[in-house]
Amino acid sequence: MPSSTRALAFFALALGLALSGCATTVSSYRDRDQSEAMECVLRAQEAAWNRGDLDEFLTDGYLQSPTLTFFSGGEVSRGFTTVLEHYRKSYKEGGKEMGRLAFSDVETLLFGADSGIVRGKWHLDFLNKSQVGGLFTLVMQRTPQGWRIVHDHTSVDEKR
Amino acid sequence: MPSSTRALAFFALALGLALSGCATTVSSYRDRDQSEAMECVLRAQEAAWNRGDLDEFLTDGYLQSPTLTFFSGGEVSRGFTTVLEHYRKSYKEGGKEMGRLAFSDVETLLFGADSGIVRGKWHLDFLNKSQVGGLFTLVMQRTPQGWRIVHDHTSVDEKR
Repeated sequence: MPSSTRALAFFALALGLALSGCATTVSSYRDRDQSEAMECVLRAQEAAWNRGDLDEFLTDGYLQSPTLTFFSGGEVSRGFTTVLEHYRKSYKEGGKEMGRLAFSDVETLLFGADSGIVRGKWHLDFLNKSQVGGLFTLVMQRTPQGWRIVHDHTSVDEKR
Repeated sequence: MPSSTRALAFFALALGLALSGCATTVSSYRDRDQSEAMECVLRAQEAAWNRGDLDEFLTDGYLQSPTLTFFSGGEVSRGFTTVLEHYRKSYKEGGKEMGRLAFSDVETLLFGADSGIVRGKWHLDFLNKSQVGGLFTLVMQRTPQGWRIVHDHTSVDEKR
């Protein structure tokens, strides 16, 4: 491509990286980088959801293990396959709309080099203008594939 | 006291320790002991609640710090004093009944020597036969005073 286009493409890429803070290589083990790496998993999940890609939302974020746990209201889902089914039933089955997902007020806490939590607010907007949202606490562990959620506790704001 | 009474008292104490698993001195740093130590904080909280001692329930369990967070439904409480007020308003103010608290299905996960989570079910029974319950995820850290909750995510089972 012409050098001006290349320069523009480079600028756009650099801007994208700077804005997301997520595409840089996590080559350091400093706390801030690992906190960023944890948050980037959420940002990847958010993007996958908003593309309608539920499978990628799950595989990007959750540990593919029978030990994975998902707490919601009074319901416990145990194991990756069960969590996948829970999401499919709630957001895909029968042509359901997934809505537009946004995470906000995201905070990370690191426990050593390989464990931590990410907490914050979640919000879903649907085409019919209905909304749902609440809070989440994600317990994450670092795996060879990157940070993955090992326990998810999500609650719904009933006062909306 | 007579030796038979002393023997009975000793037996009762030994039985209590064996049943609770909580009164032994945590002198080792092995994982199992620390998991027990985390769970024992919950058992102490349960006992304090069922004596009607809300202040002890809080000081036994929660980190007395402005960084403490409590997530419930869509509501975020931040700082020990705010969490205390939240509990007082919900369970003490205007002569409210605290009810009988029980934790069940308690599971612990340790992250290194000083951090971990405790998760499970909570249940409250009131004198008028009403009930409420749901799930909890507690993020705990070991302090010089023992294990303390630094983040609590509690949700209510709406289907009851």
